[in-house]
Amino acid sequence: MPPLSTRLEHSITSAALRSYLAEFLSTFFFVFAATGSAMSARKITPEATMVDPSCLIATAIATTFSLTVAVYVAVNVSGGHVNPAVTFGMAVGGHISIPMAIFYSMSQMVGSVFACAFLKFMTVSSSVPVHGIPQEMTGFGAAIIEGVMTFALVYTVYAVGDPRRGAFGTLGPLMIGLIAGANVLASGPFTGGSMNPAYSFGCAMVGGSFKNQAVYWIGPLIGAGVAGVVYDNVVFPSQSPEDSVRGVTDGIGV
Amino acid sequence: MPPLSTRLEHSITSAALRSYLAEFLSTFFFVFAATGSAMSARKITPEATMVDPSCLIATAIATTFSLTVAVYVAVNVSGGHVNPAVTFGMAVGGHISIPMAIFYSMSQMVGSVFACAFLKFMTVSSSVPVHGIPQEMTGFGAAIIEGVMTFALVYTVYAVGDPRRGAFGTLGPLMIGLIAGANVLASGPFTGGSMNPAYSFGCAMVGGSFKNQAVYWIGPLIGAGVAGVVYDNVVFPSQSPEDSVRGVTDGIGV
Amino acid sequence: MPPLSTRLEHSITSAALRSYLAEFLSTFFFVFAATGSAMSARKITPEATMVDPSCLIATAIATTFSLTVAVYVAVNVSGGHVNPAVTFGMAVGGHISIPMAIFYSMSQMVGSVFACAFLKFMTVSSSVPVHGIPQEMTGFGAAIIEGVMTFALVYTVYAVGDPRRGAFGTLGPLMIGLIAGANVLASGPFTGGSMNPAYSFGCAMVGGSFKNQAVYWIGPLIGAGVAGVVYDNVVFPSQSPEDSVRGVTDGIGV
Amino acid sequence: MPPLSTRLEHSITSAALRSYLAEFLSTFFFVFAATGSAMSARKITPEATMVDPSCLIATAIATTFSLTVAVYVAVNVSGGHVNPAVTFGMAVGGHISIPMAIFYSMSQMVGSVFACAFLKFMTVSSSVPVHGIPQEMTGFGAAIIEGVMTFALVYTVYAVGDPRRGAFGTLGPLMIGLIAGANVLASGPFTGGSMNPAYSFGCAMVGGSFKNQAVYWIGPLIGAGVAGVVYDNVVFPSQSPEDSVRGVTDGIGV
Repeated sequence: MPPLSTRLEHSITSAALRSYLAEFLSTFFFVFAATGSAMSARKITPEATMVDPSCLIATAIATTFSLTVAVYVAVNVSGGHVNPAVTFGMAVGGHISIPMAIFYSMSQMVGSVFACAFLKFMTVSSSVPVHGIPQEMTGFGAAIIEGVMTFALVYTVYAVGDPRRGAFGTLGPLMIGLIAGANVLASGPFTGGSMNPAYSFGCAMVGGSFKNQAVYWIGPLIGAGVAGVVYDNVVFPSQSPEDSVRGVTDGIGV
Repeated sequence: MPPLSTRLEHSITSAALRSYLAEFLSTFFFVFAATGSAMSARKITPEATMVDPSCLIATAIATTFSLTVAVYVAVNVSGGHVNPAVTFGMAVGGHISIPMAIFYSMSQMVGSVFACAFLKFMTVSSSVPVHGIPQEMTGFGAAIIEGVMTFALVYTVYAVGDPRRGAFGTLGPLMIGLIAGANVLASGPFTGGSMNPAYSFGCAMVGGSFKNQAVYWIGPLIGAGVAGVVYDNVVFPSQSPEDSVRGVTDGIGV
Repeated sequence: MPPLSTRLEHSITSAALRSYLAEFLSTFFFVFAATGSAMSARKITPEATMVDPSCLIATAIATTFSLTVAVYVAVNVSGGHVNPAVTFGMAVGGHISIPMAIFYSMSQMVGSVFACAFLKFMTVSSSVPVHGIPQEMTGFGAAIIEGVMTFALVYTVYAVGDPRRGAFGTLGPLMIGLIAGANVLASGPFTGGSMNPAYSFGCAMVGGSFKNQAVYWIGPLIGAGVAGVVYDNVVFPSQSPEDSVRGVTDGIGV
Repeated sequence: MPPLSTRLEHSITSAALRSYLAEFLSTFFFVFAATGSAMSARKITPEATMVDPSCLIATAIATTFSLTVAVYVAVNVSGGHVNPAVTFGMAVGGHISIPMAIFYSMSQMVGSVFACAFLKFMTVSSSVPVHGIPQEMTGFGAAIIEGVMTFALVYTVYAVGDPRRGAFGTLGPLMIGLIAGANVLASGPFTGGSMNPAYSFGCAMVGGSFKNQAVYWIGPLIGAGVAGVVYDNVVFPSQSPEDSVRGVTDGIGV
C-alpha cells in the first residue's frame, strides 16, 4: 500500500476531481427525483396531510428510475456509488482508498443538499420531506431495517461489479435501481426507505430536522460494511489470483 | 449417475454450502420486499382494513423488482432459484440432484421465515399478511391457478437458462421478475399470487395461519414439474447431443 | 416461391407444430395476465362498478410485463408474435408464409380463449371484461386509434428484428412490451388498448359480447400491414442484397 | 467544416429525409402515449377536475415506456433525439449540423402536433392537457426546473452515446426513458415535466393555450446546451484523438 501522502495526491488528480464531480451530479439527479416525487405526490394527494399507497409507488418508481440512471452515467467515471454507504462498503473491501472515500462522500452530501435546496426554493414549498419513523417504532429498530436493506443494496453492488458475471454485468445499474426501489416499497411507511446517508442528510439539512438522523448513518454504514465482507469472503470468494483483479482501480469502478 | 453417497458428499462441499447461503440471502431479499410492500401499503391505505388496486400494484412491482435482483445476485453461485418450485422443476429436468434440491428448498424456507419474522418484529406489526383465497373460491381452484402461474414462471426459467438463446440470456433475471409481477397483478385478489411455497410458508409460519397452505405447495410443485417436461421435450427439444449440454452442472445454473 | 402444396407441407413439420404450441402458450400467458389484472383491479376497487387510474396502471404494467416475457420465451421457437396483427404484418413483409400465418393466428386465438375461460371459471367470476368504447366515440374512430397504436407496435417489432441493430436486438422483447404498455395507458378508457385481435376475440368469446369486435380486427390488421411496408421500404430500406437477409426464415423469427 | 451550401445539400439526401421521417414517427409515438395517458387518467379519475398521484404515475410510466421505444426505433436511423432540446445539445457539441438540426426540430414539432390533434379528434375530447405551472410559482422558477431536468436528460443522452461505455451502450434507450420518467414524477405538479419543447408546443397548439410556452423552450434549450459542454469537456473529456471519434456522423447517431 502506498504511503498516505501518495494516496492523498491521488485524491486530487484531474481524474479524481472528475470522479467527485460525477458523484455530485449523479447524487443530485437521484435526490432530485426521489425527494421531488415525494413532494409532487404529497401536493396532489386529495387530503394533502396524508400519504397513501400511490405516493409510496411514486417514490419507489422515481427511486428505481433515477438511481439506475445516476449509477449508469457515473459508472465509467467514478464507479457510480451515489451513496456514502456504498463508498464505505467499497472501502471496506479495499476497492477505494480512505481519502478518496471521504471526498466521494462529501461530494454526495453536497449533491444531496443542493438537490433538496433547489426543490424547496424553486417550487416555493414550505418544506422538504425528511426521513422519519412512526411513533410505535424505536430508532434502534429503524436502524436495523435500514442496515439490512443497505446490506441488500451493497451486496447487489458487489455482485454487479464482479467481472465473473460476464455479460450479466451490463444490467448492473438497473439491478442497483431495482433493489433500492423494492426496498422503498417494503419500508416506506416504517423508515422512509433511505439506505443512503447523503440522501437523508440533504433532506434533514434543508427540511430543518435532524431528528433520528443517526438512524440513517449507523444502519446503512454497518449494513454496507458487512455486505462487502460477506460477498467477497463467504458467498463468492476469489478462487485464483486472477479472480481477485476486479478491473477496478483506485476509486474507479463499482 | 453416481451413487447416493457420492451425491450426498457433493451436497456438502464448500461450493454447495455457498449455494445454500446464496439461496438463503436471495430468498430473504425477495420475501422481505414482497411481504414488506404488502404491509407498507396496508399501513397507509386510508381504510386500513381494505386493499385497493394501488396495494396490488405496490406488491406486484416489489415482486418484480426484488425477484429480478434476487435471481441476478445468486445466478452465478446457486443458479438463482429462490423458490422450491423452481428447484423442483430443475430436479424434474435432471439439472440438480435430489439431495441438493432438498437443501436448496430448506435454505429458501429458512430465508423466507427469517424475512417475515424480521418484518414483524422490527415494524412492531400485529401481523404479517398470509396468502389466502376469497370465500367464493375453492382450494382446488386456487391450487390450479397457482399451478398454471408457476408453469409460466418455470417455463420462463427454463427458457432463460437455455444456452441456445445466445445474447438474450443476459435479460434472464429480468424476465423471471417480470412474469412473477405480471401474475401477481392477475391473481392477487384471488390467490395472493405466490407461485412459491417457501414464500407462502414463511408468511404462514410468522402470520400464524396455515389455512390453505396446501394450495401453495401442491399447485406450484405440479406446475413447475410439468413446465420442465414441456419445455425440454415438446416446445424446444434438444436436436443434437451438444444441445443437451446446458452449461449447467449439478445445482449450479438456472 | 415454392408451390402451395410445398408450403402447406412446411406448415405441418414438427418445427412448425412446435411454433404453434409456442404461440399458444405465449398468448395464454399474455392474455391471462392482461385480462386477469383487469379482473383483479376491478374486484378490489372501492366502488366495484367503476375503474380509476390505478386500474389502468395495473393493466398497463401487466401488459408490459407479460408481453415482454411472452415474446421472449417464444422468440427462438416461433418468432414470438403472440398477436395475429404482428403475424399479418410479418406476412405482408414476406417473413412468414400465408398458410403458416393462418395456423399462427389460430393458435393465438385458441390461447386467448383458453386464458379467458380459465380465468372466468377458476375465479368464479360472473364475467370477463370485454374491450369496448365509450358512448361519445364511434367504432370508426376507435378502429383508427387501434390501427395507429398497432402501427407503432408492429413498427417496433420490425425494428427489433432488424439485424442491422446489432447488440440493441437483445432488448427487443422488452421494447415490444414497453410500447404495448404505453399505448394501453394512452388509450385504455377510449378503446381498451388491445392492438391484438386474438386478445379481443378471447375476451369477447368468453365475455359473451361481440359488440364492436370489428374495431379490434380491422384497425390492427391495417395498422400492422402499413407498418411492415413503411419500415422495410421507407424508413430503413435495405441498401444491399445481404441486408435483405434478415436472419428470419419461414415463420421462425421476429 | 464544409461550406453552407454543401451542408444544406447534405440535409436533403435520402438518408437525411429518412432521418426526418424517423424523428417524426418517434415523436408521434412518444407524444401520443404521454399526452394520451394524461387524458386517459383524467377521464377516469373519480372527480374529473383533479389529478391525484395515480395520474402522475400513469403519465410518468407512459413517458418512460414510450420514450424508451421512440429512441430505440430511431437510434440507428436518426440518432433517436425525439426532442429539439436533445438536437440542440447535440448541435452544441458539434454532433449534428445546424441545418439538419433545424429540420430535425421541425419534424419533431410536426410529429407532436399531429399526435395531439389525433388524440383530440379521435377521442372526441373537449381539450388536450397543456403544460402549466401552479399559481405560487413564477415562469422563471419553472424554466430553471425544466432546464435542470433537461440537463440531466441530455447529460444521459451524451453518456449513452459515448463509445467508451462499451457494452453498457446497449441499455442506452432505456436510460433515456428512465431519467425522463423520474423527472416527470419529481416535477409533474410543478411544471408538468416536459423537458421537450416539441412536446409542449404540440400540446399548446392543439390545446389552444400558449401561456408560459417560453418556459418550455428557454429552460430546456439552455439546460441541454450546458449538458453537452459539461459532459464532453469536464466530466468525461476525450483523452486521445481516437476517443473524439464518437461513431456519430452528421446527424446519424446519439
